[in-house]
Formats: sequence, C-alpha cells, structure tokens
Amino acid sequence: MAYPGYGGEFGNFNSQMLGAAPDVLLGGYSGYPAYSDPYSSADDTMYAYFSAVAGQDGEVDAEELQRCLTQSGISGTYSPFSLETCRIMIAMLDRDYTGKMGFNEFKELWAALNAWKQNFMTVDQDRSGTIEHHELSEAIALMGYRLSPQTLTVIVQRYSKNGRIFFDDYVACCVKLRALTDFFRKRDHLRQGFVNFIYDDFLQGTMAI
Amino acid sequence: MAYPGYGGEFGNFNSQMLGAAPDVLLGGYSGYPAYSDPYSSADDTMYAYFSAVAGQDGEVDAEELQRCLTQSGISGTYSPFSLETCRIMIAMLDRDYTGKMGFNEFKELWAALNAWKQNFMTVDQDRSGTIEHHELSEAIALMGYRLSPQTLTVIVQRYSKNGRIFFDDYVACCVKLRALTDFFRKRDHLRQGFVNFIYDDFLQGTMAI
Repeated sequence: MAYPGYGGEFGNFNSQMLGAAPDVLLGGYSGYPAYSDPYSSADDTMYAYFSAVAGQDGEVDAEELQRCLTQSGISGTYSPFSLETCRIMIAMLDRDYTGKMGFNEFKELWAALNAWKQNFMTVDQDRSGTIEHHELSEAIALMGYRLSPQTLTVIVQRYSKNGRIFFDDYVACCVKLRALTDFFRKRDHLRQGFVNFIYDDFLQGTMAI
Repeated sequence: MAYPGYGGEFGNFNSQMLGAAPDVLLGGYSGYPAYSDPYSSADDTMYAYFSAVAGQDGEVDAEELQRCLTQSGISGTYSPFSLETCRIMIAMLDRDYTGKMGFNEFKELWAALNAWKQNFMTVDQDRSGTIEHHELSEAIALMGYRLSPQTLTVIVQRYSKNGRIFFDDYVACCVKLRALTDFFRKRDHLRQGFVNFIYDDFLQGTMAI
C-alpha cells in the first residue's frame, strides 16, 4: 500500500480486534457511532447542553465548551476535560479560525468523543481511569493509524503522567492525531503519504493544535 | 530572500524595533541573553533550583519542572507556568524522547525563558499581565518570524483568552513556534523554506509539541 498508517487505512478500524461493528469504532471521523448511546441520536439533549452556555452568537469558546462538556457528564467517571484539551477540540473543527464552535461542529465533536470514550473504556477494563503505555499504542492502532514504533513512543511519552495516561490526555492525543492527520490529508491530493509543506503553511496547520 | 519568515532571518531580531542590542533579543535561540539578569549567568543558582527537584537520574519531568520554575520565581509577577506549558517545554528540548530534561537542557530553557519574558515585558508596558492581539503579532515579529497575516491570525486566536494573551500562553506559543521551526529546519537541508514530509515523520515532530 502506498500509504502506510494513513490514506487507505485511515479511520478504518480493525473491527476484529474489538469484536464490534466497524462503525462503532470509527472514532467519530464520520457520522455518529452506532452503539446504543443515549446521547448519540439525541440532538435535543445536546442542544440543551450547548445552548445553555453558548453566547448570543450561537457559538461556544473553549471555556464555555469546557463548562458544557462538564455539565453534560460525557466524561462519565473520568475526570472532566481540561481547558487546554477544550482549546484543541475547538481548533480541530475551527474551519473559520474564530476560536469558537457552532452547534454543527459541537455535534461532530460529540460523536468523536463518544467513540473515543468507548475505545478508552475497552482498553481501560478495570475502570481505573488511566491506561498504560502499550494500551495507548493499542488504542491508536484500533483507530486505524499505522505508525512507526518510534512515533508511537514519542506520542505515548508525551501524553503520559508517571507512566499512565489519563482520559483527558488520551482525548487530547486523539484530537491532535485527528486534526494533524486531517491537515496533512487535505494537502496530500494524490494520497501518496507525503506532502511538500511551505514553512508558513506548516506553522498555520500545526501551531493551533 | 528565498526564505521569508525563516532561514536567513530566523532568530534575527530587528533590534531597531526595540532599540536594544540584538543579542538581548535572540529569544534564547543561542547562548544567554546579554541583559543584566541575576539568573542568566548564575549556573549555581540555577543548579540549586534544578537539583532540588530532580530525581536520582538527574533529570526533571514536567511536574518537577513546573515546581522548579515556580520556586525559582522566573515568572515574576506573572502567573506560574501551567503543567501543559511545562510539558511542551520538555518536548521542545527532549532529543532522546525520555519525557525528561537534564541540567544542560534546563539551562537552555532558562535562557530562552528569560529572553521571552523580556520580550513580553517590552510589549506589556503597563504590566497588566496580558497583551493584546496586535501585541502578540508584534512580539512574534520581534522574534524574527516573518509569517503571513493569516498564520498570525490563527496563532493569536489560539493563544488568546477573551481577547487577551496571558504570559503562560505567550510562552507556550513561543515554545511551540521554536520547536516546530527547529523540527522544520532540521529537515530543510537546502534552506529553501519547504520540506517534503512523510506522514509518519510529520506526526513524530508535531504530536509531541
């Protein structure tokens, strides 16, 4: 394949590894997760959370998003999302560079978060709230990324605290992986797995995430 | 020039804009800042801060670095550095991907922090602790980066809170700018201002920062 770890296989979760339907495991890259989740098809519920914190412009900034996600309880028994993670969540979907998120983007985020959470819970079987190094590597592979051992090491190291990966950091890692991959893919018109970046454009896509 | 905003001019602060000696304004890219700073030439003082928190391996992780920097008072009247900013500080200099920092890297960081702080104070003349959008653009230009207006907008948006940029976020921005530029430059062997990235390598350099 011309595109190891990306392109053809990107977002193509290996359903055999989790024993679940592929669309459960899409990591929110397209549409909603298929598993039975009270939130996933409940636009009204989501809109209630969203509109309760959105400003008059109908959008949320990072602090409002943090409040919104905390109130929604989407983190479950895991710790609420940090402001930093909320900022990169917004950057991931902020196509007009306003630093804010509208309801459509919020729905997209919600779907992604549910899928990532499901993935985390699959790996964190004892519900300790953290996963280990090799489990993050496994989770990344489950999301369809095919990365070199060295790149995996860099990523795992970056999102660990005392050898463990917390849910908030795991989600930050997922957000960055998705956003950077989207950025790369948009410029890889021929799906060859490499892109010629001009310095300014490289910074534009990487500084915000 | 073949390399707008980079290459030849990278790190080449425009001393006329600040009316100070160029080496004051190097942003810590090489050597120590030249201004009179009680810390800049005091290895012993730095080592005292460092060794007080370093583990038996003689290195600090992000949490230890945060404690170390807070105790040193390097933030002055500004708020102490967040854990997230300390993590990217380590990533910036973590050439062996251990997630830790030795004393030599700590000295390099210290020099950079002092120069960035000096730069921030120059812009934050009323010592309010925050700077405005156009002031961050100005500070980035002072550091020698020549970026397009759109890229500057993306960066400024990302590091703002309610339209203001706090010292901690400004430093996070400086760390990322430097680390991403270093990463790009290392691969731009001909100094042409563009690099052909393979996807895996692109992620390796951008995920950790």
